[in-house]
Amino acid sequence: MAVTPNQLGVVKRNILRADAAAVEKLSRFGVSTIHEALGRSGLMKPFMRPIYSGAKICGTAVTVLLQPGDNWMLHVAAEQLQPGDVAVAACTTENADGFFGDLLATSFKARGARGLVIDGGVRDVDTLQEMGFPVFSKAIHAKGCIKATLGSVNVPIVCAGAFINPGDVVIADTDGVVVVPAAIAQQVADAAEARENLEGEKRAKFAAGVLGLDLYKMREPLEKAGLKYVD
Amino acid sequence: MAVTPNQLGVVKRNILRADAAAVEKLSRFGVSTIHEALGRSGLMKPFMRPIYSGAKICGTAVTVLLQPGDNWMLHVAAEQLQPGDVAVAACTTENADGFFGDLLATSFKARGARGLVIDGGVRDVDTLQEMGFPVFSKAIHAKGCIKATLGSVNVPIVCAGAFINPGDVVIADTDGVVVVPAAIAQQVADAAEARENLEGEKRAKFAAGVLGLDLYKMREPLEKAGLKYVD
Amino acid sequence: MAVTPNQLGVVKRNILRADAAAVEKLSRFGVSTIHEALGRSGLMKPFMRPIYSGAKICGTAVTVLLQPGDNWMLHVAAEQLQPGDVAVAACTTENADGFFGDLLATSFKARGARGLVIDGGVRDVDTLQEMGFPVFSKAIHAKGCIKATLGSVNVPIVCAGAFINPGDVVIADTDGVVVVPAAIAQQVADAAEARENLEGEKRAKFAAGVLGLDLYKMREPLEKAGLKYVD
Amino acid sequence: MAVTPNQLGVVKRNILRADAAAVEKLSRFGVSTIHEALGRSGLMKPFMRPIYSGAKICGTAVTVLLQPGDNWMLHVAAEQLQPGDVAVAACTTENADGFFGDLLATSFKARGARGLVIDGGVRDVDTLQEMGFPVFSKAIHAKGCIKATLGSVNVPIVCAGAFINPGDVVIADTDGVVVVPAAIAQQVADAAEARENLEGEKRAKFAAGVLGLDLYKMREPLEKAGLKYVD
Amino acid sequence: MAVTPNQLGVVKRNILRADAAAVEKLSRFGVSTIHEALGRSGLMKPFMRPIYSGAKICGTAVTVLLQPGDNWMLHVAAEQLQPGDVAVAACTTENADGFFGDLLATSFKARGARGLVIDGGVRDVDTLQEMGFPVFSKAIHAKGCIKATLGSVNVPIVCAGAFINPGDVVIADTDGVVVVPAAIAQQVADAAEARENLEGEKRAKFAAGVLGLDLYKMREPLEKAGLKYVD
Amino acid sequence: MAVTPNQLGVVKRNILRADAAAVEKLSRFGVSTIHEALGRSGLMKPFMRPIYSGAKICGTAVTVLLQPGDNWMLHVAAEQLQPGDVAVAACTTENADGFFGDLLATSFKARGARGLVIDGGVRDVDTLQEMGFPVFSKAIHAKGCIKATLGSVNVPIVCAGAFINPGDVVIADTDGVVVVPAAIAQQVADAAEARENLEGEKRAKFAAGVLGLDLYKMREPLEKAGLKYVD
Repeated sequence: MAVTPNQLGVVKRNILRADAAAVEKLSRFGVSTIHEALGRSGLMKPFMRPIYSGAKICGTAVTVLLQPGDNWMLHVAAEQLQPGDVAVAACTTENADGFFGDLLATSFKARGARGLVIDGGVRDVDTLQEMGFPVFSKAIHAKGCIKATLGSVNVPIVCAGAFINPGDVVIADTDGVVVVPAAIAQQVADAAEARENLEGEKRAKFAAGVLGLDLYKMREPLEKAGLKYVD
Repeated sequence: MAVTPNQLGVVKRNILRADAAAVEKLSRFGVSTIHEALGRSGLMKPFMRPIYSGAKICGTAVTVLLQPGDNWMLHVAAEQLQPGDVAVAACTTENADGFFGDLLATSFKARGARGLVIDGGVRDVDTLQEMGFPVFSKAIHAKGCIKATLGSVNVPIVCAGAFINPGDVVIADTDGVVVVPAAIAQQVADAAEARENLEGEKRAKFAAGVLGLDLYKMREPLEKAGLKYVD
Repeated sequence: MAVTPNQLGVVKRNILRADAAAVEKLSRFGVSTIHEALGRSGLMKPFMRPIYSGAKICGTAVTVLLQPGDNWMLHVAAEQLQPGDVAVAACTTENADGFFGDLLATSFKARGARGLVIDGGVRDVDTLQEMGFPVFSKAIHAKGCIKATLGSVNVPIVCAGAFINPGDVVIADTDGVVVVPAAIAQQVADAAEARENLEGEKRAKFAAGVLGLDLYKMREPLEKAGLKYVD
Repeated sequence: MAVTPNQLGVVKRNILRADAAAVEKLSRFGVSTIHEALGRSGLMKPFMRPIYSGAKICGTAVTVLLQPGDNWMLHVAAEQLQPGDVAVAACTTENADGFFGDLLATSFKARGARGLVIDGGVRDVDTLQEMGFPVFSKAIHAKGCIKATLGSVNVPIVCAGAFINPGDVVIADTDGVVVVPAAIAQQVADAAEARENLEGEKRAKFAAGVLGLDLYKMREPLEKAGLKYVD
Repeated sequence: MAVTPNQLGVVKRNILRADAAAVEKLSRFGVSTIHEALGRSGLMKPFMRPIYSGAKICGTAVTVLLQPGDNWMLHVAAEQLQPGDVAVAACTTENADGFFGDLLATSFKARGARGLVIDGGVRDVDTLQEMGFPVFSKAIHAKGCIKATLGSVNVPIVCAGAFINPGDVVIADTDGVVVVPAAIAQQVADAAEARENLEGEKRAKFAAGVLGLDLYKMREPLEKAGLKYVD
Repeated sequence: MAVTPNQLGVVKRNILRADAAAVEKLSRFGVSTIHEALGRSGLMKPFMRPIYSGAKICGTAVTVLLQPGDNWMLHVAAEQLQPGDVAVAACTTENADGFFGDLLATSFKARGARGLVIDGGVRDVDTLQEMGFPVFSKAIHAKGCIKATLGSVNVPIVCAGAFINPGDVVIADTDGVVVVPAAIAQQVADAAEARENLEGEKRAKFAAGVLGLDLYKMREPLEKAGLKYVD
């Protein structure tokens, strides 16, 4: 049965997770590098921030579509989480209520989940930090939720401006959150590695005082573009 | 003499502070728990954030109504502060100027105040952190203030979306800020305690791998609501 | 040749930097104090925040005018940076892309730059923190940039609401960012010192329990303004 | 039985509406004038805007406390509306869903309601305009609502930053929305009238070229404050 | 060749447009009705507003992925527009520059396009209104664009929070903007019609004074939920 | 005596206004065209909007620096206004209070002023529309102001992100607000005229079905940049 984006009332049980080795390799690179390796796509909006300093996540997405003020589907999602998964939750409308707290985190952790990315609010953040359960969210908000209306689990969703399918790789660090489609996870990991190697060389040159103007041969195109130096 | 909400030019000297034992008991619980114990009310908006990590406040409110760009009333409020009080300040309009800095903090601290909650800006935040004077605010802003126009002290105010009477209990932690009416402080503290005890039991079950779906008996209502599992 | 505000396609090589001794003296005071010493002007908007806790900057501005999504001019600016300079970057429109990362920071540091103030986004912030390269920005954003369109270097710009000429002193700390015109840097530094001395005395009095009402002789003007004390 | 602010699950049937003659008189003045007559208090935040040009409301408030994404209580409120009333709705959290559309407007109109003021979203706005049913809201949003969770009707609420009791007068026009406590409605109406008369005289003088500097005798206080005229 | 979401540097020429009869039928219903018929999904964020009062659009999407400050791809898109199409444009990052003005509108109109939906800014809006070329946008902004960097045309995009494939139906009116997947356009149009017929009956009942409480049989569930009526 | 940006407590009486003929010529062009003629600079932020549909302004700036919640300086400015002037007001901090209403408008109109541009709020907007006094502002807000603290008149200011000197030309229409430095007003007016003539020709070609791809010879650079057409 086909599942369409943002369809309500559906839980998809069998999803195609990205290759574990590719996920592992992606976990070695930062979000900025992976975003470049992806051809500058896949980023969530910059309002998505870690709830504590140093939080990092890399894993396969179990997607959750929530209703405003209602976290019922996070309980449904818990059952679908497997070790190495990351819950990625969006809401059918703008809402920053505290959808997630230490009880759900305990449950998610018991399932082997590596963290939560949520375009919404979370609470009990001191406890989450003590537990070492990383969360990237739009807000911190003590406001509690009800359990009354159906959303979905493992349907394609838009989360903080990024489209994501269940099984895709989600990577989050201080620079933000990026989504890598499962089908190209290995290829993106390889490109990230190549990019990082290249950056190491550049860094050494910059540290030695070489200018980007010379390293990237920008002087001629700048002159052509009409840049004028005045005194 | 009756004092109405947001009335200007008034300082009420005798206010009915919440019972000290109730305040003490409330200080043992987090904002999220207390907000639930209150029937999910009393929360300030989530833009109210601590100026340093780990800040916590619990005490009885001395309310302050400020004019934009003017912190005169914070000096008037200082005289009304008693040990155990928390200054809770709103402004007659949206304004994020730096109403409060290290000098006022020194004065408030000398009076025995436990902190400040302000729907506005503060400055000298490094010094405030060194002093251990907790502040929850909408903004950090170096912009200084004048002392020219009357506001009020100890009138009922709306602060960051929450209605508060002088003497009410205000509790602030990483999850946000909540207001407990003085008259029901003990009852809310008891409810918070009951809730916290209950959460301890649940946490153990979640950690053991029990799902919320089973713990809360959600499977039947989910099915009734029409949730479909697909492969 | 005259350079006008926000003029595009120009790099001014010779700029008049503020006197080094004045810059040194200004570096001893906080942004809030300097802003007051300036007659309460020169502040950038409060959305400008340090990318890591404890970041501080004081130096002479090399201004940069960027195009949205394009960091070409930061490479051009690198060549104009001298030891003691701070790059201050604005954009021709609202844009929060990640204009600056660890490679540019390595280059800027090799040039002796003391930091970056940017009305835009930055990335690689964990590495920037490890490097100890302070940045104050509007956003953290992994989004990368192209190098295609001319902006300018060392033209007068508006950055986060503050007007700044190249060579002016820019000071940034936890309270925000302030700009001191080069021509009055020494005079502002002296005024900041006087103000700070004065504050030390006041702080002692406040700590001893003296009220601002008495220290600033506010009781009479408050009464004249019509303040009423009620019970 | 006492009803406390933001209490959930309560409908108060008997409320004390402001005196009809006072309401009628208030309807003759603009929001800016009434806000001044109130001593510059009672204003909602300026994000509250009419959904169509020329909308105006004046009536007695039936207050509604909504849950996010849920408009059940608007149906409950309909039964409490009497001719001359205005529904004033807030939500327990920030939410801009379309709580109200043409069907509810038809029902409200049939009850004699004069309009709606809502710190949330509305939809079917073209039809609302055709019906001549004025609404002031935070947003226009097609997003529909469920009917699942209890809020309240006729409890004291905070709406768009203003505290309001059921029965208070709410006045809305192009300049915004203001709340007048029922107990002082007549007195505020009289003050508004006096103020408006005074403004007519001033307007004539200004039109004749008299300056505010002279009309308000500002030249001396400006000089005392230190204003300097330069050439 | 497969095209992935937000892929850069691609123009897909052959897209599967929704059935013309379904589009025609959808054009008879409002956005709120269609959003309900879709199961409450497909809506763009409410910041998308018409640039002039009374603007309405219904047509098949030609999607455009823009770079910040760069409208090159709108010229590329013009060639792909067929009569009955609507250009739907997103940007790789948040940007509100004026991507579109009267010249492009003239070109789009000559191609038979019915309007533009853009998560960005537009300009020349007075002329656009005179031309009767409807636009729904995030902003009005005079800021001009360059033509320097590749985006894409007819790749799947996220626009203002909604996922859209080329060929999908986009409907925009005063209530907002909604996307209907091409594959279910007819089915959604039929559901919208059914819903609208139903609403007509309800409207008559509400106008006659029937309450939603009775029409929807809410009294019992409200009582079960614990609603209390007090005096 | 030199006047510095944002200096407080100063009124400059003699300012160099842009040439009247240049102002007259600029009034014939739209903001988007003038902004292009200026080399894409001088624009205020897009949150500056007309308070009524169809408002347009072109004139020489009398600048005003306000304090938050205080409109004293607008009265001081009134005396400096000459026929053909436009008051351009900024505030020392973010503030959206209603600084300006129908009385000040009557006074400004009596002085021959052509309108107001204000990075703040205004009120009495219905009356302002009836009077035909155009205003571009950040907000509409009924909140009134005091007259207590000095700002300045005719000092250089930053208004809504644009730097402006007294005497500069300010042009405002539906597309936004732009500032033209007095010294280059004639040159910019000529460039705007040339640009407008050119646009007329282009418009005819676009209407005839010519594509921008061909008119601007974009096909080759697009191919070079790597654009791929797929089926």
